[in-house]
Amino acid sequence: MIRILGIDPGLRRTGWGLIECRGNTLSYVAAGTVRATLDGEMAHRLVALHEGLTKIVAAFQPDEAAVEQTFVNKDPAGTLKLGQARGIALLVPALAGISVAEYSPNSVKKTVVGAGHAEKAQIRMMVGVLLPKADFDSDDAADALAVAICHAHHRVSLARMKALVG
Amino acid sequence: MIRILGIDPGLRRTGWGLIECRGNTLSYVAAGTVRATLDGEMAHRLVALHEGLTKIVAAFQPDEAAVEQTFVNKDPAGTLKLGQARGIALLVPALAGISVAEYSPNSVKKTVVGAGHAEKAQIRMMVGVLLPKADFDSDDAADALAVAICHAHHRVSLARMKALVG
Repeated sequence: MIRILGIDPGLRRTGWGLIECRGNTLSYVAAGTVRATLDGEMAHRLVALHEGLTKIVAAFQPDEAAVEQTFVNKDPAGTLKLGQARGIALLVPALAGISVAEYSPNSVKKTVVGAGHAEKAQIRMMVGVLLPKADFDSDDAADALAVAICHAHHRVSLARMKALVG
Repeated sequence: MIRILGIDPGLRRTGWGLIECRGNTLSYVAAGTVRATLDGEMAHRLVALHEGLTKIVAAFQPDEAAVEQTFVNKDPAGTLKLGQARGIALLVPALAGISVAEYSPNSVKKTVVGAGHAEKAQIRMMVGVLLPKADFDSDDAADALAVAICHAHHRVSLARMKALVG
């Protein structure tokens, strides 16, 4: 049994979701949203995100982590800021010695919904189907669970490939 | 007397530079470059950057920090990655309770060279003039000292403005 932490990073809201994975069976553990005020220094917002994620990692002790790889195409300043939040999302599990995988929004959607251009509502619905006990307070938390599900599928394929190769 | 840490963040090389500031007099303390290999998981590179900057903050105990605000206009993926390194550069001093200012490359160049579109070589030269004892091992370390000098000037103006206002 392994426990996977999915993270959907953002400057205002960072979604997180934990699932357990026994072979092909997935189950919901917990999910939530780390919220940051938009006031004050950027550095303080990053400290709040660091603190929130550190508490989650300490409380739930995940074995592996997966982070969504988004970027804002049209706005370099927004992309840079999102990158800052993403840096913290990658750092916190890695500091705890947990391996961190990255998945594009398209590969998350393909794995969870079956199509690369799914809407938020479809992701939310499919997360509910795949994890019937899931209880999430935001789209970001649902996205984080979707990233965790994506990683659960990809890590099984990877293990199969490794077994086939040798 | 206050001690200022300037940081010029990057994924391969993060420059850092420390100066001391007594009224209008600046003096060089130390400078260097945190280098990361481009191999391996992004998260591990961010951990190495976190570790490098944490050691510098612990060793030199700066009072204030300043980080250069760059972005790569034409490449969103590169901008996102640079943002990740920048997130760590903002986080580490803030975690130590140090206030972190941000300056655009143009305002750094204007303060140090007197023109917003200065070349790297001009910055390097002016850093050498303003801090005669400065010893830096890379353009990134020179840029980091330039950011620290920029903050030293702006914080004095800010103090003057506050004194005028009341």
